[in-house]
Order: sequence, then structure tokens, then C-alpha cells
Amino acid sequence: MPHNLKLYFSFFIFPFLIPGIHSTLFAQAAETKYVMVIHGGAGTILKSSMSAEKEKAYTEALTLALQQGYTLLKAGKTSLDAVEAAIRVLEDSPLFNAGKGSVFTHDGRNELDASIMNGKTLEAGAVAGVTTVRNPISAARAVMEKSQHVMMAGPGAEQFAKEAGIEMVDASYFKTRERWEALQKAIRDDSLKNKPDQGNKKPAKAGVINKDNKFGTVGAVALDHAGNLAAGTSTGGMTNKKYGRIGDSPVIGAGTYANNATAGISCTGWGEFYIRCVVAHDISALMEYKGLSVEQATQTVLDKVSKLGGDGGIIALDKNGHAAMPFNTAGMYRGTVSSEGKIEIMIYR
Amino acid sequence: MPHNLKLYFSFFIFPFLIPGIHSTLFAQAAETKYVMVIHGGAGTILKSSMSAEKEKAYTEALTLALQQGYTLLKAGKTSLDAVEAAIRVLEDSPLFNAGKGSVFTHDGRNELDASIMNGKTLEAGAVAGVTTVRNPISAARAVMEKSQHVMMAGPGAEQFAKEAGIEMVDASYFKTRERWEALQKAIRDDSLKNKPDQGNKKPAKAGVINKDNKFGTVGAVALDHAGNLAAGTSTGGMTNKKYGRIGDSPVIGAGTYANNATAGISCTGWGEFYIRCVVAHDISALMEYKGLSVEQATQTVLDKVSKLGGDGGIIALDKNGHAAMPFNTAGMYRGTVSSEGKIEIMIYR
Repeated sequence: MPHNLKLYFSFFIFPFLIPGIHSTLFAQAAETKYVMVIHGGAGTILKSSMSAEKEKAYTEALTLALQQGYTLLKAGKTSLDAVEAAIRVLEDSPLFNAGKGSVFTHDGRNELDASIMNGKTLEAGAVAGVTTVRNPISAARAVMEKSQHVMMAGPGAEQFAKEAGIEMVDASYFKTRERWEALQKAIRDDSLKNKPDQGNKKPAKAGVINKDNKFGTVGAVALDHAGNLAAGTSTGGMTNKKYGRIGDSPVIGAGTYANNATAGISCTGWGEFYIRCVVAHDISALMEYKGLSVEQATQTVLDKVSKLGGDGGIIALDKNGHAAMPFNTAGMYRGTVSSEGKIEIMIYR
Repeated sequence: MPHNLKLYFSFFIFPFLIPGIHSTLFAQAAETKYVMVIHGGAGTILKSSMSAEKEKAYTEALTLALQQGYTLLKAGKTSLDAVEAAIRVLEDSPLFNAGKGSVFTHDGRNELDASIMNGKTLEAGAVAGVTTVRNPISAARAVMEKSQHVMMAGPGAEQFAKEAGIEMVDASYFKTRERWEALQKAIRDDSLKNKPDQGNKKPAKAGVINKDNKFGTVGAVALDHAGNLAAGTSTGGMTNKKYGRIGDSPVIGAGTYANNATAGISCTGWGEFYIRCVVAHDISALMEYKGLSVEQATQTVLDKVSKLGGDGGIIALDKNGHAAMPFNTAGMYRGTVSSEGKIEIMIYR
């Protein structure tokens, strides 16, 4: 890992500032230890349809997110701090379907979901369907740290975020032209199909129509100097979504899970299948109960998603700094930073 | 199982109507095979504080739920049909914190959650925060069978339920005097404590204050003649809940999970801990990956919940008809029906 390096960026850092890194650097030079992995969504991302300009923009945003996270880890901050900071960068970018770049619901609204989990304590926080929280990942963290709850939804979640001092914005902050046009297209496409049915009954049909309506979720997993893992996920949901649909991103165990005993995991893809497969927790369970490696476990569970008819990707980082980032789509925006600060960004297969 | 029979009801049936039961009856007379297990919530349920009249009412409601489920199974209907029917009985009773007897939120509303899962297909459906759906378990089933989604929340979920032909009621249907008084008491108690904090940080304190505010969830697991498992859970949430809190009941993997490869599971208790421990899926994973029995797996995961400071109970039924119903509270309303139609109801330890 990574096997499919397409783009490469070097980010000079000071490894001697991170306890334990210095000796590791020389003792295990052959094996890269990662301290953070991120994703910006999986989907039909083809080199043939990507302009050099767009590729550069995505690469820069992903690099910035990893830099921010790494800088915090280097300064001795926690994996939770790094995960939150990296995801905030991606939320603030209009490129990804999270925060600023969130897609529109059928009613022309932006309903955002996010979750975060602390691998040391198994504490977790999540918000679903918030419309005026600039950085849902920070609201999720506030739920974890400042409430006795794990999951909050809708206006109640926004009220809590406000009381917790989280930055609120007008709902219009999330309205971008590109996403609005995507909604109009989705509504046109949607009118061509019949009544909706459960994804797995007619996967090919539903898959064609909704193929790019459900992707772009962002996520991060980090491992800090104390050996603690954290994972987080943030999304704008599915273009043209109806009925207050909640996907896997705010569901602990499905879209996000972290456990120091195994790994931190963040998912992106067709949320319904990720919930049904309890993807993030299943990866942890395979590692803990069957001794699978993070590579084996992520691939095994992604194969289960594929078998049911779902698609998407997974990023995972285990307690030893081993990373895995499988996906069954054409591409997945993703990146890693090693303990030495080497940043790698990948987009295609 | 069950070891702690306190009350006993016999329900005469026709075992020869169920394919396979007749021969099993004689070949494995020593080992009871269960076809359905239900719960009506765990908590501080002490014989010393229970009137004979109240005990009788609970016993009758639980018996009726099992009878309805069993009658359907006997007639060759699916485990999903049995689970839905049994939960509807408990939802329609004012005795349980689900449907008619739902507790009040801090704002004096009744926000109901439910989920259901098909162990054969891993299809699932859930609704969260609905206020005008008479039987949330039926809305959850409609989400599973009539939409392409798994989870819906709030007004969107209600709109879907209405379009799907689910019975709607005025929000006042859920207002019962006993629950309203419980809210007033909870508000008084709540004013005595400081800012809320994550459950596990001060479990003793938060536990004392909220002890009986979070219980009463109902659930059912059934195994049909075709060997298919299904599980469902329904709740009115936590008395005095704020901020659009969502507990474990509508979260697939946490409060509900079913998989023909292992077991069907429904949970009741302090939802935050059940989400963090991904309880229902963890039980399935321990059975599938470590070969634990349903008794071992449920107890192992309940111990994890206890260790973090949480409490509650679990009901599970495996693919062979073995049942387990552990809880770490004083009592749990629960019941079983065997393949021969023998109904057993238990309340205390």
C-alpha cells in the first residue's frame, strides 16, 4: 500500500518531533508506517473525463487536508484532532460532497450527516440531517464530547450544535451551482423510472440511474503518537434524496468505526448497502475475531457489499500503521501520509 | 433457556401444521426449539414493586404478542410477518415504551423509532423520530420493502409512510397520562444535575438520574418454517430526550440485526452504549467468526456494554432455534414460544 500511485507530493516534516518515529524510521525503513489516510469519495472517476485543472484542484485539496492533519499529529495532538482538521478542509472545499460542496435533496435542501469515533474509548458522536452547521464533523465531535448522546438528528441536532458553540451558517452557504444542476439532472433522470425499490432487487437499474448521485462522501482515519486511532466521515448525502433518508455516514458501525484493538475505518459509497453489511464494524470484527489483516478484512467486506449489488470504497488504518483503501468503483479520491510526512494522493485505479 | 421461568402460559396449537416440527417433536424432545422470542424492555423491574394486577397485564400483553406471531408462523407465514405482528401488539399496548405507550421528549412530543431486518436477504428498514405513525415497525418494514433506502428520519419518514399506505394517527394518540407524569418527574430530576456529559464518563451519576428514562423498548425475533430469521425493534426513545437524539433501536447493527448465517437479535437498554458497541452485529460476528454459541455471544457482548458503564438486555434466536435473553438490569419483560407453541413469559431474574 499504496500500489497504484498516480500522483505524488512530498511534504517535508520533522520526524524527530514525533516520539517513537525516529527509531522506527531506521529500524523499519522497508515498511511504511502511515499515520493518516483520507478519502474524498468513490465513483465513476475516470482519467479520460478528468481535466488536468480539476485533477490538480482535487489533489491540492486532499494534500492540504493531509498536511493539516499531519501537522497536528506532529505537534503531539490526538488522532481525533487530526481527523477533525482534515475533514474540515474537505468540508470547506466545494469539490467534495460534504460541507460546502454538499448535494441537494429532492426538495432543494442541503442535509448534511457526519460521525466520528475515538478508538481508545469507543466514544462516538454523529449528526444527521443538519442544514446550518458549517462543519458537521465538528458538530459530531461535540455530540461525542459535550453530550450524553451518540446520535442527534435534524433541528434538535442543530440546536445542540449552536449551544455547543459550533459555527453556524445560513443554509444558503451550501448552495453551489454545480450541485444544483446535478439535482435538476437527477430529477429528470428520476422521472424516467418507476416507483423506487430496494437497491438490491434491481441493482443494475437503480445503479445506472443513481450511479453518481450517492458519492463524494469524505473521511479520515488517523493514528497518533500515543497509539490511539480515530475515524470520521462527513457527507452531503445523495443527490435528489427524499423522505429524510439517512445513509451510512452518520451510522456508527456502518460508515465509521474505530477501535484501538483493530483499526479505524471510514466508508464511502452506496450507503444502503454499507448499513446492511455493517461494513466498518465487520472489518474490525474480522480483524479481531479471525485475525485477518487490514487489507484482507477490508477486501472481504467490500466483496460482501459487491455481492449484494452495492459499490463504493473503504479506507482503513490499523493500530500498527498499515493502511488499506480498496474500492470497487472506477476511482476513489484518496491519500495517505506516512510517519515521515510523505504524502501520496491517488485518484484512479 | 429459559432458566428463570416465573410465569407460564400454555397455548394449544397444531404442531403437525408446521412442516418438520412433527418429527422434531419426538426426535429432540429433550431440546426445546424456539420459533420466536420477544422483549418489552429491561430496567429496574422488581417483584417487590410490582402489583399482581400490573404483572398480569404485562404477562397478557406479551402472551398476546407471542400468540399473534406464532399463529402466523404456524400458518406458514414468514418470520418478518411474525416479527411485525408481535411488535404491533406491543406498540398498541400502553404498557410499553413503543407506539401507544411511548415516552415524551423534553419538548413534550412523542418521537418514535423502529427497525426491522430480514436475515435471508440482509434487507433492512428503519424510521427515526416519527410522530404520527401508529405502528413504526410497519413503517420500517415499508422502508425496507417499498423504498430503495434503509433509514429515514423525521417528517420525510412520515411522508413516506403515508404514501406507502401505513396507518397514520394524530400525534395526540401517543399522549398517555403515565408517560406525561414521567416526563415532569424527569424534568425535575434533570434540573438537579449539571450539564450533560457522555454516558461513560460518569456512569454512576448519569445512571442514577436517567435509570428508568431510557427503557421499555420492545423487540421480536422469529424463525420461520423456511429457516429464515427476522428481527425487529421499536421504541418511544428516552423520557425527556433532547436535541433529536437517536438511540440504538433504529440503527441496524446496534439495536437490530438478523442474518440467517447466525442469529436474529433485538436489543433494549441504554442506547448510546449499544451503538458504541455495535451490539447486535457484534453478537452475529462472534458467532460467525469465533464459533460462539448464541448464549456465549450475547453474554460476551452484554459484558462489553457493562464494562463501558451501560445497561440493558438482549434477545437473540439462532438459526437452529436456540434462544438467549441476557440482561444486566433487575428485570426484563420477555417471552418465548417454542415450535410446539408453548409460551413462556418472564419478568424478573
